[in-house]
Amino acid sequence: MDSLHIELSQNLKQKPEPSALGFGQYFSDHMFMMEYSLEKGWHDPKIMPYGPIALDPSAMVFHYGQEVFEGMKAYRTAIGELVLFRPDMNLKRLNESCERLSIPQVEPSTLLQGITELIKIDASWIPSGEENALYIRPFIIATEPCLGVRASHTYKLMVILSPVGSYYPEGIHPVSIYVEQRYVRAFRGGTGAAKTASNYAASIKAQEDAKQSGYSQVLWLDGVESKYVEEVGSMNVFFKVNGEVITPALSGSILAGVTRDSVIALLKSWGIPVSERKVAMEELVEAHKQGLLEEAFGTGTAAVISPIGSMKWGELELSIGGGKTGKLSKKLYDTITGIQRGQLDDSLGWRYRIE
Amino acid sequence: MDSLHIELSQNLKQKPEPSALGFGQYFSDHMFMMEYSLEKGWHDPKIMPYGPIALDPSAMVFHYGQEVFEGMKAYRTAIGELVLFRPDMNLKRLNESCERLSIPQVEPSTLLQGITELIKIDASWIPSGEENALYIRPFIIATEPCLGVRASHTYKLMVILSPVGSYYPEGIHPVSIYVEQRYVRAFRGGTGAAKTASNYAASIKAQEDAKQSGYSQVLWLDGVESKYVEEVGSMNVFFKVNGEVITPALSGSILAGVTRDSVIALLKSWGIPVSERKVAMEELVEAHKQGLLEEAFGTGTAAVISPIGSMKWGELELSIGGGKTGKLSKKLYDTITGIQRGQLDDSLGWRYRIE
Ligand SMILES: Cc1ncc(COP(=O)(O)O)c(C=O)c1O
Ligand SMILES: Cc1ncc(COP(=O)(O)O)c(C=O)c1O
Repeated sequence: MDSLHIELSQNLKQKPEPSALGFGQYFSDHMFMMEYSLEKGWHDPKIMPYGPIALDPSAMVFHYGQEVFEGMKAYRTAIGELVLFRPDMNLKRLNESCERLSIPQVEPSTLLQGITELIKIDASWIPSGEENALYIRPFIIATEPCLGVRASHTYKLMVILSPVGSYYPEGIHPVSIYVEQRYVRAFRGGTGAAKTASNYAASIKAQEDAKQSGYSQVLWLDGVESKYVEEVGSMNVFFKVNGEVITPALSGSILAGVTRDSVIALLKSWGIPVSERKVAMEELVEAHKQGLLEEAFGTGTAAVISPIGSMKWGELELSIGGGKTGKLSKKLYDTITGIQRGQLDDSLGWRYRIE
Repeated sequence: MDSLHIELSQNLKQKPEPSALGFGQYFSDHMFMMEYSLEKGWHDPKIMPYGPIALDPSAMVFHYGQEVFEGMKAYRTAIGELVLFRPDMNLKRLNESCERLSIPQVEPSTLLQGITELIKIDASWIPSGEENALYIRPFIIATEPCLGVRASHTYKLMVILSPVGSYYPEGIHPVSIYVEQRYVRAFRGGTGAAKTASNYAASIKAQEDAKQSGYSQVLWLDGVESKYVEEVGSMNVFFKVNGEVITPALSGSILAGVTRDSVIALLKSWGIPVSERKVAMEELVEAHKQGLLEEAFGTGTAAVISPIGSMKWGELELSIGGGKTGKLSKKLYDTITGIQRGQLDDSLGWRYRIE
């Protein structure tokens, strides 16, 4: 692999107010880029000023969606260290997504070096404020200028950085969700287990309809029987029923979330029973009726833990936890963010120090 | 709507040899472009020199695949007229795709005017050679520079033109296809009925595997039961069984092909029984056993009619028509291409004259 070339920006941007960040609206001064061709493989890794990229209008990504991406965060810990959270998991998942989309895999160490160098250069973009972070978006797009439906022969890998605010400006709180029965996000034999554009394109319409009806997220059911829970919004989903925590198993249509994996590991370390299996809506309704549906929450890099306060399924409206964030949800949130921010011991080795 | 602005290229490209065209590899001198914003709606339609477009790396299309496209062809008829084939169908389908992808719809007449002006300007790019044509690719991409998963607030619509060669340089002939049992292209509740990047991204891997095993296309089965035929490659599919023609009904996961619609109309006009319904693989195997599976073919803008010579389904290999193009397949091919090229009477009003 060629060595990393660095070109620094001559025009540093003004940084946004930490209180006005939102999600994915601002981008740092630099970006990482690497090219792929059949002859050279991945080559020419570089860090350069953030700015527009020029692509032929026939570039395959515009037509056939051959694309994969990742999402992770960099944090500044209490003692001033720069850390990532389990980046090895994201790099591994990126390559699994590549495999599904027929995109050539990337040497994890090359990409990790690119990401860490980029973050060091733009470290001043890690926003202050305990709940803020620098979101990292690696992505790969098919760039060959050709309209044939086949795998591209050229690709561009980029990493961009976005300072993001807390998912909960007013503190963690439960959201209401709509159980989707008409649209399907992903399905067995499809691309649901990959982090690729397709799955999100398919979800936008349902998300809009749910918002319009006053719900903040969609709960996705399986595509075959429309019976089993899969994910919530862009998050994995967990339920606490009568003391046991259950979450849909990785069936092929669900993304293997890093937060999901972390939640399962923590629960196990705490001795709380957790099982990965099929979770039927009927089962949740039954548990709710008996007063046993104690908590429900989504997990993902953006929100970490997103408590679910109610679920609308057809005519039924299930209220969960009396509109309050459940004890376990809160403990998981505090523990994971505590590890990420260096306030808690990292006994599981999840923090990755950049410098 | 603003009036169409035209900027002509000062550097006309050299044209490729008509015999070396292939599909979607060369592009004409100009392109059509139009922008969308929440404030202005679709605005600023223009024809300009073909060339790269600059997008922010955070542009939504790169991350969440919010994209739709169309595919049609312009022909030069025997008497020198420039014609399109049923463009109203493509414009209608584009807007249906927009609806599914939460993309703002386009005024068909504005787009048709853009397309026809563009073709007139680049008319010299319609390749000579009876089987060649100018492929037209309208597409819309989400351009807002933001990583939130939601519908973009800005879009770019473009139309590019590509001179394409015959799908059959050595004359129409049957292909062997692989019945896919592992991967699924599209799904009830998904985006299969829309012409959008997602469906193609999901198909690339299966197509590659089939090619590697010596098959030229994949036959897609339904995602729920993996029992019913849906499409073949990027084409709709038809079977002639004991004198009757059957094709999968438009169930929501199948693209409503313009060629499919044309084939059905022609068959009806010829008094040949045709039915749109579920077509089970088992039924085809049974018909084959009894010697009643007379013909099979795919339909699409690129190939028009693509005869299927054999189908591999698990351990079974069904040979159809003894390796020859069936009589009906050939008649449909000759009739549709004859209408497109102005050699046959256009009693159904399918030709659209540009000038
Ligand atoms: C569809 C989907 N499911 C689940 C997740 C959660 O994954 P992670 O915990 O790795 O962020 C994400 C990403 O945030 C996602 O996009
Ligand atoms: C998935 C798919 N099915 C079917 C077709 C056939 O549609 P049409 O006849 O309009 O070209 C196409 C496009 O060519 C397609 O991409």
